[in-house]
Amino acid sequence: MALIVQKYGGTSMGSIERIEHVAAKVAATREQGHRVVVVVSAMSGETDRLLKLAKSVHPRGNPREMDQIAATGEQVSIGLLALALEKRGVQARSYTGAQVAIRTDNAYSKARIKDIKAERLLADCQAGIVPVVAGFQGVDDSGNVTTLGRGGSDTTGVALAAALKADECQIYTDVDGVYTTDPRVEPQARRLDRITFEEMLEMASLGSKVLQIRSVEFAGKYKVPLRVLSTFVDGPGTLITLEESTAGESMEDARISGIAFNRDEAQLTVLGVPDRPGIAAAILGPIGEANIEVDMIVQNVAPDATTDFTFTVHRNDFDRAHDITKTVAAELHAKDVRSASDIAKVSLVGVGMRSHAGIASRMFKALAGDGINIQMISTSEIKISVVIQDKYLELAVRTLHKAFNLESAAC
Amino acid sequence: MALIVQKYGGTSMGSIERIEHVAAKVAATREQGHRVVVVVSAMSGETDRLLKLAKSVHPRGNPREMDQIAATGEQVSIGLLALALEKRGVQARSYTGAQVAIRTDNAYSKARIKDIKAERLLADCQAGIVPVVAGFQGVDDSGNVTTLGRGGSDTTGVALAAALKADECQIYTDVDGVYTTDPRVEPQARRLDRITFEEMLEMASLGSKVLQIRSVEFAGKYKVPLRVLSTFVDGPGTLITLEESTAGESMEDARISGIAFNRDEAQLTVLGVPDRPGIAAAILGPIGEANIEVDMIVQNVAPDATTDFTFTVHRNDFDRAHDITKTVAAELHAKDVRSASDIAKVSLVGVGMRSHAGIASRMFKALAGDGINIQMISTSEIKISVVIQDKYLELAVRTLHKAFNLESAAC
Repeated sequence: MALIVQKYGGTSMGSIERIEHVAAKVAATREQGHRVVVVVSAMSGETDRLLKLAKSVHPRGNPREMDQIAATGEQVSIGLLALALEKRGVQARSYTGAQVAIRTDNAYSKARIKDIKAERLLADCQAGIVPVVAGFQGVDDSGNVTTLGRGGSDTTGVALAAALKADECQIYTDVDGVYTTDPRVEPQARRLDRITFEEMLEMASLGSKVLQIRSVEFAGKYKVPLRVLSTFVDGPGTLITLEESTAGESMEDARISGIAFNRDEAQLTVLGVPDRPGIAAAILGPIGEANIEVDMIVQNVAPDATTDFTFTVHRNDFDRAHDITKTVAAELHAKDVRSASDIAKVSLVGVGMRSHAGIASRMFKALAGDGINIQMISTSEIKISVVIQDKYLELAVRTLHKAFNLESAAC
Repeated sequence: MALIVQKYGGTSMGSIERIEHVAAKVAATREQGHRVVVVVSAMSGETDRLLKLAKSVHPRGNPREMDQIAATGEQVSIGLLALALEKRGVQARSYTGAQVAIRTDNAYSKARIKDIKAERLLADCQAGIVPVVAGFQGVDDSGNVTTLGRGGSDTTGVALAAALKADECQIYTDVDGVYTTDPRVEPQARRLDRITFEEMLEMASLGSKVLQIRSVEFAGKYKVPLRVLSTFVDGPGTLITLEESTAGESMEDARISGIAFNRDEAQLTVLGVPDRPGIAAAILGPIGEANIEVDMIVQNVAPDATTDFTFTVHRNDFDRAHDITKTVAAELHAKDVRSASDIAKVSLVGVGMRSHAGIASRMFKALAGDGINIQMISTSEIKISVVIQDKYLELAVRTLHKAFNLESAAC
């Protein structure tokens, strides 16, 4: 008998019929002999409706009031699911974030969880009652309602699982697991049975929208086994764990889990900067001070006294970053600033990659074979990322998927 | 500088424009130098929408969950009004029932207020902040959300005014005060400047739907001056107080405040019951045990050894009451049971009425003059009620309104 936290998102709670379907799934888990604590989001579209209503009153209103309003979406859905469970003969009790209590700081609309009181929920479990907890929300020390920001229900689920020392946190969503890459780009994409937290973080940060990054970090930190499953299609989903899978592969092999990509970035290059210590800081300092996040940074070894310095930022920040960079470049007496927003980033993600130089060359060779020029390269322990022209993105993903045999389970 | 509690109902909060209008009224009261605490209902239709949603999941679900869901209506409207006030430059802060805290028993859907913590609201007032409190809801000792039942926002307003020792509780609604009778029946009906709590209770219990009865009782008990005003039309409204108005009238005069009426009752008569002690209890005992409320009771002096016993019940309870009465009548060897549901009750309401026998005869004479037969009569300190055939109701109201000169201020 395990203690399982199940989190159902807005799509899973999107209608009365779907809420009844969720109740059936919870009941089935209980019939398997497990204790269940459920976390739910607001019915799909409801949070947007509420925020739109609030903004129609005041476009930039006090975030305390925005949270007070937005939190009602989950308060309705916990009540509805508790009723649906009751109708099935399963005793249930709904809890808002404040009622649990899920204590947060008071950073409205992006609050962080400080601690969770688990006693009441554990007592319910002991008494055979299923607690249904509102995701996305908490309460600060003064009793004000806070929200955790978009996708925060995943974080609530993981945090609850950690506080309850649950055996598994199951995130139910509208996809049936984590795939080797986006199936809309590569129809041969394959569902992974398991993936490590680190790999999942890379996949998520690179545009794989299955889980909120913060919830994966949280799960990794508190060692909560996390499973992504579909609400609508039965199946084992993908387990996200600390341990690497070793089934069916030699320990010597590097394992490629998948291919992540995004089109969210833009590239800035400062040409002909004097190659001397402190140049990177001189360029990136003002960018950081403007609260612009920098992703990839590349600086080549200088062939003469000058060098070229390239970095990428989110496209939303591109105009501001461009202005700042031009000012800095002038001060540094650089030759020129070049920019490109028609770029895409493609990454191979997998454990043990760095130690296998062969992987990088196999990647570059596959791309070259299709005439795709690589503009930037960056590597980490578990990924190799390249920047290419965005028109080649889909081709690059399919080419790499094939080159690394990701469509078959043993690669 | 007074401390005023203003309560705005669902119609007043029915749209973004109306919420902004409420904000303007609150701001205007502040500009007059007063401190204001606001209580609001859910936007009109919202509570019904939420309960319908809940019932579509479970028609007779756990009332705890129904309250959890229903309470979100006010949580949204307090947030919206706080934002609308902020946009006008008025500092405001929203509070759910739990956040105040408004402590109740745990009788879900019809909870009673036990006590209210006033400190936080008073501190806000001191700091120039307008607290915006959710009506209709509270919290029990275990932190569960409760609701006070339909119209409970009026009760919240009055209870808050009592706890804050406010100078006045203003109930804003869609009518501009309490009238001598329903203007839809008698176009000459006149708005009353003031009325006593007792008169208001009679008016309210007799179908004048301006205020929830419980809130009037509450206001009377805690001596909170209560004022009914229109959200949409400026004016002084009607003040409901402990003291009787004496302006413009001799202290010897009885004062008729108005004419109340309803069509909600049905009549049962047990004919030819033996006239002996305990008969009333024998008939009404089983009715009371079936939780049916009895309104008027009339038993005539018996001309022989038997008497006729008549009483009225709410029409919703008529069928059940009829069955019970027939059983009891048989046991008592009564001659027959007669019933009528085509009846109406009309009442003259006013202070000091009993001591003025002339009023009753003037009333009966006026009705007789129009050929209206009186079936039952009952009197109290501040009202005289008669039961007539319901087809004469409108005529009776207009006749009495004229007979007592209620269209002119001094009667």
